[in-house]
Amino acid sequence: MKVKVVSRILEANDRIALENRRLFDRANVFVINLMSAPGAGKTSLLERTLSQKTGLKVGVIEGDIAGSDDAERIERLGSPVVQINTGGACHLDANMIYEVLDDLPLDDLDILFIENVGNLVCPAEFKVGEDIKVMLLSITEGHDKPLKYPLMFQESSALILNKMDLVPYTDVDIDKIRKDSLSLNPKLRIFDVSCKTGEGIPAWVDWLKERARRV
Amino acid sequence: MKVKVVSRILEANDRIALENRRLFDRANVFVINLMSAPGAGKTSLLERTLSQKTGLKVGVIEGDIAGSDDAERIERLGSPVVQINTGGACHLDANMIYEVLDDLPLDDLDILFIENVGNLVCPAEFKVGEDIKVMLLSITEGHDKPLKYPLMFQESSALILNKMDLVPYTDVDIDKIRKDSLSLNPKLRIFDVSCKTGEGIPAWVDWLKERARRV
Repeated sequence: MKVKVVSRILEANDRIALENRRLFDRANVFVINLMSAPGAGKTSLLERTLSQKTGLKVGVIEGDIAGSDDAERIERLGSPVVQINTGGACHLDANMIYEVLDDLPLDDLDILFIENVGNLVCPAEFKVGEDIKVMLLSITEGHDKPLKYPLMFQESSALILNKMDLVPYTDVDIDKIRKDSLSLNPKLRIFDVSCKTGEGIPAWVDWLKERARRV
Repeated sequence: MKVKVVSRILEANDRIALENRRLFDRANVFVINLMSAPGAGKTSLLERTLSQKTGLKVGVIEGDIAGSDDAERIERLGSPVVQINTGGACHLDANMIYEVLDDLPLDDLDILFIENVGNLVCPAEFKVGEDIKVMLLSITEGHDKPLKYPLMFQESSALILNKMDLVPYTDVDIDKIRKDSLSLNPKLRIFDVSCKTGEGIPAWVDWLKERARRV
């Protein structure tokens, strides 16, 4: 009974995700669904990414249970941004995205980031019309995460290992993260990054530009 | 329509949570629903807690999407433990707990920890029949978490700030975490802990023993 209900919700979500997809294609914008556990550094990654001189116009949709801190951080960098407050829901769904698309200058954008609610589980289950999913993992979360939260690793095109500056102060086994992530998803592209120091950001941005250009 | 369905699921959950509660009371066991984002250190806290000589018998239910790493870590310490794999669900619900109660020696236990799935959102919405909720926050997750994920802070009796050993290597504002957490929940008891060094564990265990004794 419970399962039936969930599948009905997912079907409705997929239908609206397809409509979002159509609107993104018409505007020729490359869309990234950015996901991670709380506090892994999604907004910090966006700040670093938007600060690189790429010649690309980038917009952002911020998803949070409550508050608008993240949208304010993005707005300071001069990028078009919309905040969605889910009011309790632990993920963004396609309908929430559809509702805010009129508030963004889609036709002027090359790239749109959708920063999902901090959650390593549910966001991976709901398509929002994105081209690719990208996930962050803070290395402080530990090396057991890929095997414990496999779906997000399987669904993502890139894995950004953030807070690499903290590796010397932890017992984390980065090689195990890499090995287990690739066993779940052999095509996963992995970037070692520190949003605090800026280490690894140019390689990630180059990859992103390359992917966006293919659209 | 969606809302109606969710409320029906929650009602069913609450009914089963009450039945769990009755079974816990009959066995005279104090039950803690332990919650946090992925990788904040729930299992490490349990390892540290179980290693203290308290004279209390402690059992554990481990909740994970997949895998049994955490249950194996607890088993090594000689405590009764059951692993629940939710197979995708992002939280434990009362029915999952009810299903495994026969696999634990409830009458022999003084304390039962229910380690929830790593998720800062949904676990706080589902009662499982616990006496209290306790949450961990790894300080590496950043000081914006209380205001962004308010429900879990509101629902918890204690907040364990873990990975305090990493404070010197981050920009985190611990005072802001404390201030915002207490503004959400003035009765929240906050413990500064490092599960790596053992700092702060005795104060937490003393508090826990005191609470358990009152049952």
